Amino acid sequence: RVHRLAVIRGDGIGPEVIDASLDVLVAAESVFGFSTELIEISAGARHYLATGELWTPALREQLRAQDAILFGAMGDPAVAPGILERGFILEMRRTFQQAVNLRPVKLYPGVVTPIAGLTPERCDLVIVRENTEGSYVGRGSTVHAGTPHAVAVQESVNTRMGVERVVEFAFRLAERRGGTLTLCHKKNILVEAGTLWQSTVDDLSGRFPTVPVDYVHVDAFCFYLPTTPERFNVVVTDNLFGDIITDLGAAIQGGLGVAASANLNLDGSGPSMFEAIHGSAPDIAGRGWANPIGAILSTAMCLAHLGEADAARAIEAAAVYVLAQLPATAGPGMGFSTAELGRDIASLVRSS
Amino acid sequence: RVHRLAVIRGDGIGPEVIDASLDVLVAAESVFGFSTELIEISAGARHYLATGELWTPALREQLRAQDAILFGAMGDPAVAPGILERGFILEMRRTFQQAVNLRPVKLYPGVVTPIAGLTPERCDLVIVRENTEGSYVGRGSTVHAGTPHAVAVQESVNTRMGVERVVEFAFRLAERRGGTLTLCHKKNILVEAGTLWQSTVDDLSGRFPTVPVDYVHVDAFCFYLPTTPERFNVVVTDNLFGDIITDLGAAIQGGLGVAASANLNLDGSGPSMFEAIHGSAPDIAGRGWANPIGAILSTAMCLAHLGEADAARAIEAAAVYVLAQLPATAGPGMGFSTAELGRDIASLVRSS
Ligand SMILES: CC(C)[C@H](C(=O)O)[C@@H](O)C(=O)O
Ligand SMILES: CC(C)[C@H](C(=O)O)[C@@H](O)C(=O)O
Repeated sequence: RVHRLAVIRGDGIGPEVIDASLDVLVAAESVFGFSTELIEISAGARHYLATGELWTPALREQLRAQDAILFGAMGDPAVAPGILERGFILEMRRTFQQAVNLRPVKLYPGVVTPIAGLTPERCDLVIVRENTEGSYVGRGSTVHAGTPHAVAVQESVNTRMGVERVVEFAFRLAERRGGTLTLCHKKNILVEAGTLWQSTVDDLSGRFPTVPVDYVHVDAFCFYLPTTPERFNVVVTDNLFGDIITDLGAAIQGGLGVAASANLNLDGSGPSMFEAIHGSAPDIAGRGWANPIGAILSTAMCLAHLGEADAARAIEAAAVYVLAQLPATAGPGMGFSTAELGRDIASLVRSS
Repeated sequence: RVHRLAVIRGDGIGPEVIDASLDVLVAAESVFGFSTELIEISAGARHYLATGELWTPALREQLRAQDAILFGAMGDPAVAPGILERGFILEMRRTFQQAVNLRPVKLYPGVVTPIAGLTPERCDLVIVRENTEGSYVGRGSTVHAGTPHAVAVQESVNTRMGVERVVEFAFRLAERRGGTLTLCHKKNILVEAGTLWQSTVDDLSGRFPTVPVDYVHVDAFCFYLPTTPERFNVVVTDNLFGDIITDLGAAIQGGLGVAASANLNLDGSGPSMFEAIHGSAPDIAGRGWANPIGAILSTAMCLAHLGEADAARAIEAAAVYVLAQLPATAGPGMGFSTAELGRDIASLVRSS
């Protein structure tokens, strides 16, 4: 089996965590009998500052030809907020119809969580975030901008198709995990969107008779997640709510350095993309301190997606083992470096 | 000084926590030399089920004639989600132009927080939530509803006037507290709304030269709040983001039973409204277990708003003293009852 992978290192700590991930990937190849063809793609803030290019047709077609994308991080203080997000990341999600943003919120053993007394048994959920619609469609307008009479209108657009594919994915996942599917929304206020989401869940529920269904308002969700995460197993939610609650999830599972994500295309029309939840962290870039675990777990998600389930499991197990030995998240004098962690996990994978 | 107060007990634990609050109010009157004229207003789920009435013109005019409103809680499983929220609470906020929803996130000494090692010194911020616009305007539509081609559009509308009054309020508060004003939004994605919010902050900033200004994306805010709440002092945000992050704040400050809020009219066109953040909690209603501290602290906010600063301070101090003795939030066998707590706080106020 040969998998064609695009690698976008990006900016800041992106290249560092990708390097560590590739070490682990190479180790997995040797053990599990698959191989990868890597193609490096230049993109991100530095690339943009140097070339003025963001999401070009050439880059798009290059990416489209790959089986999956490993993504480091993008961002730099010299690029205004929103430029890379809207100009690259959202373009990629939309162009390749990466309909689902999958974000496990899992507390691994030995990881320091800010929640007092939280145990791994109580914190193991997956958030299924819609990834192409909602408030991310970029629709809105302002009249009388810059005057005392300015009115800004921002639209959130959801389609039955867009919602249904995500809800169906979430039902299947809940079925496999043997857990409840919880819809997280604000349907008492966002009536149009909320009705669409709730009716889609209701309609599909009959096809998944073993999956209990629940509903929770997004505000209540943010109360429950830090206090009783064991309430949740699979949570399906809208793009913007998903953005918000997955960062909260990352906090609870012990930090951005640990959190992984997959941007999944579900219909074969383009590659899926895998990235750690953290950003480019320019403040610590270049020091070799960044925690690569989020990126490595994202690489495992990538391999699972490509059908390499055994390799994915081995990488997760190795990362979890190494995580449990870490004193805390990355930092000066913490007794490990990004590269070391990558090597440690790689050698564990090799001996698995 | 005579203050005319409307009292809306509402449903579930609403009447219980209001009873306790009124005990405290009466105690404060005797000590601080003001008096109140209370008028009881029937409203909420039970009232709606019995009469079919929500927000009527008669009720509106009755409320309008008061100086402030003390609000218990509304809600009952027999009333569909959204009916009371949109049919009463949002009508009240809009009709009386309760422009600001003010929510302190303060960890009081001795209160059990889910955050490991969090101390009161590190958790003392105020969230200033816009309360009449944004996604709460109730604008949206669905085409092809109920078909595979359904498209739901939900609008968020913000006006310069609506944003400016809230931002100005937040600047004044930050000035008084000697702290930073942080705008919490998602301006990299919600460009129209985000530009309006950020430019309003920028424009007003010159009038408050002593107030440092900061910005944080709402997703990052949900990462920081449980991990480093000391980053924040005054946070100003949009209606929907405010709804979400204040519930997270309530979790961190030790639960819904402790969290207070004010819905403030700023231009004298109607009464302000004060309520605990918790809901009607039908599961524990009628048992006398509900924690009335949130409601009592909301009553203190009401008195502060009416110019009774000494009484407000005394009630807060008494509530904080009693809170510090509590083993945990309300529950069976916890060694206290709603009414007892009210009486304890009232007698502390009497001896202040
Ligand atoms: C970078 C940005 C566009 C993005 C988002 O808002 O979706 C990020 O916050 C995320 O969660 O992946
Ligand atoms: C009851 C509901 C309308 C309300 C809101 O969404 O604003 C509540 O969640 C709150 O935070 O006060």
